[in-house]
Amino acid sequence: MTEGRLRVGVLGTGTVGQTLADRLSELGHDVRIGSRTASSDVVRTFAEAAAHGEVVVNATGGLVSVDALTLAGAEHLAGKPLLDLSNALDHSVGFPPKVLATDSESLGERIQAAFPEALVVKTLNTMTNAIMVRPRTLPGPHTNFLAGNDAEAKGVVRGLLLEFGWTDEELIDLGDLTASRGMELYLPLWLRMLGAVGNPLFNVHVVRAADS
Amino acid sequence: MTEGRLRVGVLGTGTVGQTLADRLSELGHDVRIGSRTASSDVVRTFAEAAAHGEVVVNATGGLVSVDALTLAGAEHLAGKPLLDLSNALDHSVGFPPKVLATDSESLGERIQAAFPEALVVKTLNTMTNAIMVRPRTLPGPHTNFLAGNDAEAKGVVRGLLLEFGWTDEELIDLGDLTASRGMELYLPLWLRMLGAVGNPLFNVHVVRAADS
Repeated sequence: MTEGRLRVGVLGTGTVGQTLADRLSELGHDVRIGSRTASSDVVRTFAEAAAHGEVVVNATGGLVSVDALTLAGAEHLAGKPLLDLSNALDHSVGFPPKVLATDSESLGERIQAAFPEALVVKTLNTMTNAIMVRPRTLPGPHTNFLAGNDAEAKGVVRGLLLEFGWTDEELIDLGDLTASRGMELYLPLWLRMLGAVGNPLFNVHVVRAADS
Repeated sequence: MTEGRLRVGVLGTGTVGQTLADRLSELGHDVRIGSRTASSDVVRTFAEAAAHGEVVVNATGGLVSVDALTLAGAEHLAGKPLLDLSNALDHSVGFPPKVLATDSESLGERIQAAFPEALVVKTLNTMTNAIMVRPRTLPGPHTNFLAGNDAEAKGVVRGLLLEFGWTDEELIDLGDLTASRGMELYLPLWLRMLGAVGNPLFNVHVVRAADS
């Protein structure tokens, strides 16, 4: 993996994908955004964006992620860190949307099973996009979780997160990708917190006993 | 509802029930603990403990809570705040246990449906028992959620939480009891955090933007 400037393919042209792509570009990385159809030099097809990336970011809607990654092509994901920040939220039921994950299977694991050679790292799915890429928006420390089966891929993703402004202490590695179940099942609580707080500019901080 | 000293029935003689009962007694409340069979002046049957309480605490294991509350008797729960801190954790699968809740139905709602005249307030289920009753064990602020359909019952429970040492700002009311889905589905994440932190003395704090 190259140090410094990375080629990154960001899949998804919604607010989350655009926010990630803008921030990565601002930090000096060489970003291509992937969509179903290419529309500019920067916004290419899923396959072109994935082929471009040394790292691929899945910022597509969770309900269509496997389809989008299929269009991207397994061969363009193989051996690369795949930063998966998606949530399988079914908005057809109104608000709040239903999360389509269980304590036995997450979207992160479904993606890993569909693309066994991709190095899936689940992270950033537990907060709004503005906080993902600019964590210092919030006062004081708060927490971002990581889960994945490949230590090196987690290291690459961790490097990008540090560039975004996360501190090492704020990044909690929950272990292998089965931890993405809990990270995704947190969404119903997040959605109710959104109602209580009144805006999405919040996140949780894991507070530990002083001696732990 | 009487101010000051309350009669409280705590259902469940496990660590959680004992911890709650001890703390409530220490605070001057008149506590009876309920079990399947009475074994002392303080540990009575579920029915006797529930009949005694102006407030009832469900500290039974989530998988047996409806059975235990059935033994307690709907007539002894009617019109009373029922502080439900249980989680439906299936330990038969090994560690981590599976949480038996979905984004469509929680244990809190199952209890409310089975005992429609009880005033169910879900709270405290997102942390270990030592922190529930002595929140100042942790340095700095952290968060406890409440959910329930009856505002007055939530007010009574909130009063007990303040006596435990929670501050008003730390208590986030998530609204009606459907919010207990998110509170219960948080458990798989909590269990992975337990692995990462290495001990259960932690909790999350909701960090908000400075101006929210």
